[in-house]
Amino acid sequence: MTDRPNRQILLAERPTGKLEESHFKAIDSTIGEPGPGELLVRTILLSIDPANRAWMQGRTYREQLGAGEVMAGYTLCEVVAANDAPYATGAIVACEAGWREYAIVPANRVQPVTVRGPLTHHMSALGITGLTAYFGLLNVGQPKKGETVVVSAAAGATGSVAGQIARIEGAWVVGVTGSDDKNRMLESDLGFEATVNHRSETLREDLAAACPSGIDVYFDNVGGRVLEAVLPLMRTHGRIVCCGSVSQYDSATPAPGPAGVPGQLIVKRLRMEGFLVSDFIGEWATAQGQLAAWVTSGELQVLEDVVDGLESAPRALVGILAGDNVGKRIVRVGPDPA
Amino acid sequence: MTDRPNRQILLAERPTGKLEESHFKAIDSTIGEPGPGELLVRTILLSIDPANRAWMQGRTYREQLGAGEVMAGYTLCEVVAANDAPYATGAIVACEAGWREYAIVPANRVQPVTVRGPLTHHMSALGITGLTAYFGLLNVGQPKKGETVVVSAAAGATGSVAGQIARIEGAWVVGVTGSDDKNRMLESDLGFEATVNHRSETLREDLAAACPSGIDVYFDNVGGRVLEAVLPLMRTHGRIVCCGSVSQYDSATPAPGPAGVPGQLIVKRLRMEGFLVSDFIGEWATAQGQLAAWVTSGELQVLEDVVDGLESAPRALVGILAGDNVGKRIVRVGPDPA
Repeated sequence: MTDRPNRQILLAERPTGKLEESHFKAIDSTIGEPGPGELLVRTILLSIDPANRAWMQGRTYREQLGAGEVMAGYTLCEVVAANDAPYATGAIVACEAGWREYAIVPANRVQPVTVRGPLTHHMSALGITGLTAYFGLLNVGQPKKGETVVVSAAAGATGSVAGQIARIEGAWVVGVTGSDDKNRMLESDLGFEATVNHRSETLREDLAAACPSGIDVYFDNVGGRVLEAVLPLMRTHGRIVCCGSVSQYDSATPAPGPAGVPGQLIVKRLRMEGFLVSDFIGEWATAQGQLAAWVTSGELQVLEDVVDGLESAPRALVGILAGDNVGKRIVRVGPDPA
Repeated sequence: MTDRPNRQILLAERPTGKLEESHFKAIDSTIGEPGPGELLVRTILLSIDPANRAWMQGRTYREQLGAGEVMAGYTLCEVVAANDAPYATGAIVACEAGWREYAIVPANRVQPVTVRGPLTHHMSALGITGLTAYFGLLNVGQPKKGETVVVSAAAGATGSVAGQIARIEGAWVVGVTGSDDKNRMLESDLGFEATVNHRSETLREDLAAACPSGIDVYFDNVGGRVLEAVLPLMRTHGRIVCCGSVSQYDSATPAPGPAGVPGQLIVKRLRMEGFLVSDFIGEWATAQGQLAAWVTSGELQVLEDVVDGLESAPRALVGILAGDNVGKRIVRVGPDPA
């Protein structure tokens, strides 16, 4: 087993401008043997996230990725072998195995997964992005019934869940995406009240028209000019949930910040707050239970965008930065367990 | 009485760039008669605040000031006559009489003042700016013992109180001003641990050196490049109290926002929050009691910068925007009551 070739994809070169497929390189390595307290795992599903690009830019909540390293990524894996670690062969675990078929990971860095329904749901609505939407919207944004909630990257993995939870909570939900097709889908399939295309030259006017009462909560996945357009429309005591700033990831030179900071925050007593889903790890199980119940009842639609084969990962990431995904982008690296 | 000349200063012209004394014009009017539910008041002290300039720029938490209007400002006044309103002649009230010797104001827009110590204290440590420092620091910033608190415009009316309250609460307090003289005073007289001059070309490095553990709370009175320099030094779960953005008031074209918004907020889970002292009006009396106790015990030094005569007001405001004040700038318009 451990002499089998192990396909992996390296970050061959750190991008200075836009990310391209040529920044990656596929190689074969060998699998190796897990040491004490380690697991050998087989990757089933690989998560493709805009944050992967931010990891190349500098230190975030993790160390910067360097050239020559195996590209990092969240995965759902099957345990193949455990060396003095309390995991059974065949168990499903969530971990950061990276862009490779097999990985050796410390057992204390994986989380057991109790599978409910399709495994892909544990990477979408019940996975990191679903949990991010849940805690960001409910714990940071705290929407009240009847309030207006705007969500950017609203057809993405996190945004589509955040918007639907806001709708379930009784808010007037407005989605922002870069595509009229996505916007039609949000309105017809996911119950968004209105949508706005951020490529519009009248972005601010379009937003104002979609939010006649102003904006109480902005769930921000993108930063940049959408954030700047939202600020003047925020209502007194509004909340801005800082979840991502995708508009700034795929560049060597981040733009200046949004005009209106801090002026609008003072005048309207806004709260603008960042969070990471890992801060709420003690509440994940409860949240997954609620998310699963909404999926079962049909209130929460699960949007997934699955591409096949590890070799597709570079294109999948380059594409997601241009917004070519609908819902959670996942690379299927290997089959579900038999 | 009501035929006596009433000196007042108008905003003759709205500034488009920097504010100058020539934007104001002094005229004599008559006093007039209070109608039912109104008071005739005599101005004793007039508050000069950087926010006065922001009121000319556009709508803030109040309507924009227009050309030809009496310049607006907070005042401490003596009641001269009350028309069907529950105020005794000679009572001291806080209100927004504006830049004039006498004013007629609705009784429901004034607040009675129970004078403790010098009347000027009710415009500095026990007044709006002292209360702003109190609620902003304690309710929004929530510093804990041993944390690092940075205060900008630290020798100003609000900053000097915010920094001292942080020190009283056991924080490591660092002040930012635009003057080495002010900085020496903060360190020698007010117990600031360190200070930084925002005019330094190595502002960010100076701040990093003054805050070896990073920054937990930033009490921001200025916005702009100081805010931008602070953001990368904020610690995980840090708080930024958005109190003012003086650097942006005296200009027709506000600068872009600080780079690092929202990126730094996400990565470090920062909370950035605006507030207005009026949101806490129900707690003012309690806060004034605490502030007065600190003044009496000597823990809280009161910094006041009093200039004489209503005619000095334009120069006093132009000057405060350039940072030429130390502590609370007040114009003495008339004598204390006999």
